[in-house]
Amino acid sequence: MSAITFEVEAEHQTARAGLLHTPHGDVHTPVLSPVATQATVKSLDPDELRGLGAEIVLANAYHLYLRPGADVVAHFGGLHRFMSWNGPLVTDSGGWQVFSLGFGLEHGVGKIASIFPDEDQPRQRPRGQKPRMTKIDDDGVTFTSHIDGSTHRFTPEVSIGIQEKLGADLILAFDECTSPLHDERYTAEALERTHCWAKRSIQARSRSDQALLGIVQGGPFEALRRESAQVIGSLGFDGFAIGGSLGRTKNDMRAILEWTIPALPAGLPRHLLGIGEPEDIFDAVERGIDMFDCVAPTRHARHGVLYTPDGRLMIHNARFHEDFTPIDPDCGCYTCTTFTRAYLRHLFIADELLGYRLATIHNLAFILGLVGRIRAGIMSGSLAEVRREFQAHWRAAPE
Amino acid sequence: MSAITFEVEAEHQTARAGLLHTPHGDVHTPVLSPVATQATVKSLDPDELRGLGAEIVLANAYHLYLRPGADVVAHFGGLHRFMSWNGPLVTDSGGWQVFSLGFGLEHGVGKIASIFPDEDQPRQRPRGQKPRMTKIDDDGVTFTSHIDGSTHRFTPEVSIGIQEKLGADLILAFDECTSPLHDERYTAEALERTHCWAKRSIQARSRSDQALLGIVQGGPFEALRRESAQVIGSLGFDGFAIGGSLGRTKNDMRAILEWTIPALPAGLPRHLLGIGEPEDIFDAVERGIDMFDCVAPTRHARHGVLYTPDGRLMIHNARFHEDFTPIDPDCGCYTCTTFTRAYLRHLFIADELLGYRLATIHNLAFILGLVGRIRAGIMSGSLAEVRREFQAHWRAAPE
Repeated sequence: MSAITFEVEAEHQTARAGLLHTPHGDVHTPVLSPVATQATVKSLDPDELRGLGAEIVLANAYHLYLRPGADVVAHFGGLHRFMSWNGPLVTDSGGWQVFSLGFGLEHGVGKIASIFPDEDQPRQRPRGQKPRMTKIDDDGVTFTSHIDGSTHRFTPEVSIGIQEKLGADLILAFDECTSPLHDERYTAEALERTHCWAKRSIQARSRSDQALLGIVQGGPFEALRRESAQVIGSLGFDGFAIGGSLGRTKNDMRAILEWTIPALPAGLPRHLLGIGEPEDIFDAVERGIDMFDCVAPTRHARHGVLYTPDGRLMIHNARFHEDFTPIDPDCGCYTCTTFTRAYLRHLFIADELLGYRLATIHNLAFILGLVGRIRAGIMSGSLAEVRREFQAHWRAAPE
Repeated sequence: MSAITFEVEAEHQTARAGLLHTPHGDVHTPVLSPVATQATVKSLDPDELRGLGAEIVLANAYHLYLRPGADVVAHFGGLHRFMSWNGPLVTDSGGWQVFSLGFGLEHGVGKIASIFPDEDQPRQRPRGQKPRMTKIDDDGVTFTSHIDGSTHRFTPEVSIGIQEKLGADLILAFDECTSPLHDERYTAEALERTHCWAKRSIQARSRSDQALLGIVQGGPFEALRRESAQVIGSLGFDGFAIGGSLGRTKNDMRAILEWTIPALPAGLPRHLLGIGEPEDIFDAVERGIDMFDCVAPTRHARHGVLYTPDGRLMIHNARFHEDFTPIDPDCGCYTCTTFTRAYLRHLFIADELLGYRLATIHNLAFILGLVGRIRAGIMSGSLAEVRREFQAHWRAAPE
């Protein structure tokens, strides 16, 4: 019995609104976790995060293991105290980093392989691309630090040990992510490892005040995804995450959610890993996802890509040189109520740190506000209207 | 008659505490202006600045002329609105930038030439150092943009015109800064230009809601500094700044203040340009300086150099790896009341933007707090005790 409990408050077709009780407070789902890879949501302090309505933050076991080290964090009483965030926290297990430094690097692909939308065939490693820095065997993964080239090894036991030292409210099983360019044979092999590591992750846990989420893998292959949801769903996890590559298009992502979610125990929370663009959130919530984490809002912000109700604007654009309106006149965030597009553009052109921060504040306000409206739509049975209203303005990025 | 007035509230030997009334509020002197070179105090927002007790901020006519352009700022109603800082502002005239891109670059020197403390002779331009990017004539300065290599020209009339468009409460005459490695003959020639440009700056002004400060130059030469204070002091400026290179050691700086300040009209404010390390502030206030600006607290912060009552600490240092105390346990700033040295070190080692900001908050809190104690010491006649107490702990940087 975990100290974390989940209750479904309202359902609307397969979408649902819930309440996740954790030792560090309640989380209203659907919810999006801003990403604090290195124990900081880049440029923001914890008070700003709270002010933006963030209820839970995701940090990274791999990065914190390398710097400053899990023991340092443990000696100070855990990650909440270390980063001065006293709300709920989730840590990922390092499986994704092992992928992105491994086959992700070798194959030149990310979460959804749509960076090569016109290609049907797996692509060769781009010229000049580094070879992968990981070696996977059935017991675990040996990898090279992206910081100093030193060699390290993660196993399910190591990952759970690190995550118990960090002490987040939700932790993740250690898994092997596959690349969208892997064939079915390799993906099936990797899936067997992931299922074996899932059992070992459960075996390795020793804390009852953390919820342990199992991760469903299986790449873009229907049979494997269905099998994985069945297996992972039966092991006694406190909740679930859908991980790994989500295919080559957003259609693939929707299919993967439809294959897997119905096979998972209904009363437990479901997290879609690494996804969080506005259009994806609707698709996923409608199919039963409760939780998201995504670097997009914060990463976009640092690149000057700002969310507005009708899409994204690039603040570097010359047309904002004398634009004395806010990013979004209807947005109530500090950035929009205090500064103009012209000033923000100036900060970005001049490479000023304040620009990254003000942009991050706005993008998080936008996406957290959207997730809040989605939740309200589920509670009131008007999710379809919320989506319609959003899409009436929003120009989605091309698939 | 300027809309800015200055009253001396208390005197303690040659030190004084005063009140500067500006169209955007009162400033309690002695005061230090955080530097907002590009219309932002790097990484901080205006609310944080106010929260830190900053009363006035210094921005830069040269940088804002290049980016985003004085007209853009003027079209939006001036710099206060553009950067959302509704308190008092001062802009410098561009004279210093002309120096630092010119002879400063060629001679490899800064504000105080103590970067070569052991050398008696002017030093050759270091190998690989860029040649200067400015050409000075009696009418003005032609310079090359450090951003895109385009050619521009500043004259006193251009500088005042830009500063009137920016609309700060205090603006500075256009001057020629000389290098500490210039000989007396060149410095005298440059001084003649500075005095001529001072008169032209006064002629060029058209706004009565800005105070125009004259700048005393003359390098390290007693006769020239005394002459400059006499001339600049007689031209009808609303206040004064001591500018240019302040010699080769901090002793030279003290001498320059003693030569010049007594020759300036007593009832007007005096600004020491570009100086603001703790030890310098005491020296200058004791000699009659009312206002400072300095990039040191904010620049140090971004390099991880943090002020503490007993000197400076380098937060990257390995000894802070597991140091779970604040930077300064007696400091009441957000950084010190919320985060540990270990966390700050982690942010710096991991190159996280939040680190620069938290360090900036602390360094400004430290230096503004010190200036506040100095002011209180003048008001209560206990400035000597304030200095004694400060120096009992502080390990000054070597001269």
